[in-house]
Amino acid sequence: MPNSTEGWTLTPIATVSSPRTEAIDDDWGEIEATITLVPPYGPSSLFELDAFSHIEVIFLFDRVDAGSVHIEARVPRNNPAWPAVGIFAQRAKNRPNRLGLCTCELVGVDADTLTVRGLDAIDGTPVLDIKPYMAEFAPRRPVTQPDWSHELMADYF
Amino acid sequence: MPNSTEGWTLTPIATVSSPRTEAIDDDWGEIEATITLVPPYGPSSLFELDAFSHIEVIFLFDRVDAGSVHIEARVPRNNPAWPAVGIFAQRAKNRPNRLGLCTCELVGVDADTLTVRGLDAIDGTPVLDIKPYMAEFAPRRPVTQPDWSHELMADYF
Repeated sequence: MPNSTEGWTLTPIATVSSPRTEAIDDDWGEIEATITLVPPYGPSSLFELDAFSHIEVIFLFDRVDAGSVHIEARVPRNNPAWPAVGIFAQRAKNRPNRLGLCTCELVGVDADTLTVRGLDAIDGTPVLDIKPYMAEFAPRRPVTQPDWSHELMADYF
Repeated sequence: MPNSTEGWTLTPIATVSSPRTEAIDDDWGEIEATITLVPPYGPSSLFELDAFSHIEVIFLFDRVDAGSVHIEARVPRNNPAWPAVGIFAQRAKNRPNRLGLCTCELVGVDADTLTVRGLDAIDGTPVLDIKPYMAEFAPRRPVTQPDWSHELMADYF
């Protein structure tokens, strides 16, 4: 795991197997997928994880071409009804470092494999980290967000 | 942003400035910090982000030595009252890929700098991604988690 002034090298800890093989905008909520660890990670890396109902998964949008990454403002999904917003004001996959993040239900753990529901990552996606979801990390004051984001998310899960 | 079969090189998009210069276990909730983008990212990368009350920040635990990373089970905070759990069943910083993740309040945005409250990252921490918090990404079914995690989090924020 070397690092330099230029960048940090991260190595996948697991891989997603999903019935979804292409990036589709909506209807992720009922998708069941599995996440299987890659060596040197194994069952002891997941010990007691099944006491949690949800996990947070950090993954790589590995099918996004580096040349298509946006760094400024753009219109989410190119929907003319919505405003242009900065790349860090949206969750588009064509983003710097191509990191995805999803909170999903943990359906079960079997040896080195997790079954999850509602993970918005396609088949073959490399996973960089898995964290247990703790309610204490949720927002502690009321959440506000712009209308366009509610419209975009209406059918997402 | 090259990648190979061995690893992916990620480059910080911003840096944290915080009054906290050392990793302390608790009392992050009222800490105010700033996150300043590094070139080529700038104000347009953050356009309209201030319409959100909260953000999710993915960062690097850069002060964690690679040799101290755990890959199996360990006792959180070495507290003998708690069980040993897998590294992916806890949020310890000595974890594979050393990725941190925190949902925090967005206090304000000024040009290339965000002010945030409740970010559990120390001064100088490299940031890999900033995502707007959307309520739709929150757990959609009841959350359960083990008692030790509630005890650990009691004074965290």
